[in-house]
Amino acid sequence: MGVVEEGVVGFGIIGCASIARKLSRAIGLAPNAAVVAVGSRSVDKSKRFISDNGLNPATVSAYGSYDEVLSDPAVDAVYVPLPTSLHLKWAVAAAEKGKHILLEKPVAVCAEDLDRILAACSAAGVQFMDSTMWMHHPRTAAMKQLLSDPDRFGQLRSVDSVFTFAADPEFLEKDIRVKPDLDALGALGDLGWYCARAILWAVDYDLPHSVTALRAPTANSAAVLLSCGASLTWKDGRVATFHCSFLAHLTMELAVVGSRGTLHLADFVIPMEESSAAFSFNSASGLSELATGWVEMPSQHFVRNETPQEVLMVAEFSRLVAGIRSGTGGSETKWPEISRKTQLVIDAVKSSIDLGFQPVEISP
Amino acid sequence: MGVVEEGVVGFGIIGCASIARKLSRAIGLAPNAAVVAVGSRSVDKSKRFISDNGLNPATVSAYGSYDEVLSDPAVDAVYVPLPTSLHLKWAVAAAEKGKHILLEKPVAVCAEDLDRILAACSAAGVQFMDSTMWMHHPRTAAMKQLLSDPDRFGQLRSVDSVFTFAADPEFLEKDIRVKPDLDALGALGDLGWYCARAILWAVDYDLPHSVTALRAPTANSAAVLLSCGASLTWKDGRVATFHCSFLAHLTMELAVVGSRGTLHLADFVIPMEESSAAFSFNSASGLSELATGWVEMPSQHFVRNETPQEVLMVAEFSRLVAGIRSGTGGSETKWPEISRKTQLVIDAVKSSIDLGFQPVEISP
Repeated sequence: MGVVEEGVVGFGIIGCASIARKLSRAIGLAPNAAVVAVGSRSVDKSKRFISDNGLNPATVSAYGSYDEVLSDPAVDAVYVPLPTSLHLKWAVAAAEKGKHILLEKPVAVCAEDLDRILAACSAAGVQFMDSTMWMHHPRTAAMKQLLSDPDRFGQLRSVDSVFTFAADPEFLEKDIRVKPDLDALGALGDLGWYCARAILWAVDYDLPHSVTALRAPTANSAAVLLSCGASLTWKDGRVATFHCSFLAHLTMELAVVGSRGTLHLADFVIPMEESSAAFSFNSASGLSELATGWVEMPSQHFVRNETPQEVLMVAEFSRLVAGIRSGTGGSETKWPEISRKTQLVIDAVKSSIDLGFQPVEISP
Repeated sequence: MGVVEEGVVGFGIIGCASIARKLSRAIGLAPNAAVVAVGSRSVDKSKRFISDNGLNPATVSAYGSYDEVLSDPAVDAVYVPLPTSLHLKWAVAAAEKGKHILLEKPVAVCAEDLDRILAACSAAGVQFMDSTMWMHHPRTAAMKQLLSDPDRFGQLRSVDSVFTFAADPEFLEKDIRVKPDLDALGALGDLGWYCARAILWAVDYDLPHSVTALRAPTANSAAVLLSCGASLTWKDGRVATFHCSFLAHLTMELAVVGSRGTLHLADFVIPMEESSAAFSFNSASGLSELATGWVEMPSQHFVRNETPQEVLMVAEFSRLVAGIRSGTGGSETKWPEISRKTQLVIDAVKSSIDLGFQPVEISP
């Protein structure tokens, strides 16, 4: 089993979390990737995942442990959707077995853990990438092009982001994302991760000088965050805020304001439609003479993508892996670097909450 | 001069600031209002304002002082666009002369001053209203109806607002809004006022428990705020943020998120078009099975208004004034109450900045 075409990256999926279904489909759709193994704590569960997700039992191995996946020579790379608290152990183990790693976010419980993961990847020469899918949508590049235009956008002044969804009672009781031993960062790790990444993306990954948690976060009885927010500042006057919550209606707002332009979108994490994504951009606007209206209206932009963003992510990751395997490319350091910066911001928000909303300076 | 029809409220305009041109037009368009006097520090300037704004010199008196406007028996009400530092003196003087008051925002330098103005209005039995125009747009009522729907919006969780515009170098050097002796609250008073009002409007004017200024505000050399922000919290877990700035592209974002719905608009202060205003509302949305898209898309709502919002404001104010004059109605206390709450929030933001970003509790 596990025989894949030359140039196609063989993926092992470690853990059968619900998100793994989306990635399994994406790996299947990517032209340069294929699922070759699935491992969970029970081989029956792995077999069920294979059949439930339309994978071919003849070419995809089912394992009853994660170790077996890592020992399978057909596995070039692993996708790891395990609870965050298990990332350190299994990502390091995967790297030590020479497996490239596509790691679900949040990538670690804290930056110290992530640094151990990244050190293991670096030592093994394997590619690391976190599974922040929207980074790979062509809309993201189109928006960045506008934000980089000194005439149309000017200098960045502020970024504000909101990512919330209304978890149902079962989620709030049982989901791994509300369990302190599994995903201790709660909504901050699950949703705040995207907001922090969006802010860093907007500022070209220039780390903020200081991060201050907003007051009145909410937590469950086990002290796992269900909602929180933060204010980020840079020494040159740029500012950002974000708010994330499991307790509010599905919302994915991102507004980036520059000296000469404004970008807004309402679905920055997962575009509303799979094949086309929109954003609004406004430049050099002002008010009419008596301030009874605007003189330049925002333009609506639509970016078509025949390939879903998670497939583009898998394809890009696999392209890098194939380059390393064939000796034609090295590990792309951009991806671990931006994972680490995102984790530093998340850690700072958590620290600020623990310190009673004091500002926390980030040292790279 | 100053002869107006029965039931039509005669307005005196005190001060010829640029914003007065917009209100002069609005008073002319309102069916129950008419400009009858204009006063400034020079009678020539008042005459020029009258001719520049298409007013009839035969029916509108030009005065070289504010006192003369207040002494004119044809003046039922005054519109006061003076610098904020002059509001206390002239609004109190107007009330003492029995004139109803439409006061430009920010209404006062601090709540203590506002309380003296409101006490004078109350003692004289005159109507007080601040000039927050968007309150009177039919869109505002349409949005409130949705926010009040327990099925479609649920319980309010968060409000985020941004109001910025890119002031030109002349504004930043000379405008009254950057002068400590004229408009000491700077961008906070000019723009933050609208954000604070929008937040209070969304929560049905329930004052926040605590207000914390966001770090890294910017100020000019005279310590007048050019940009700042704040985080507001309520004891039941509701949260809000706002950001305002003279240093960023024209942006008027408002997002209100409930447990079951999300409202967003990009022009909450001044609708982009004068005759139709839009907002986006989304209810009971979720993600598709594999989280590759949304299952309910936001709906775009358009509210037509044949009458501009500032005309609706003047008409509503004049309707209240006419009721008081005819003895058929009393002073509407809603308007001074929401002015005062807005001022309390603005004051708390300023205090928090002065206290090094400590939270400030609001006591009504």
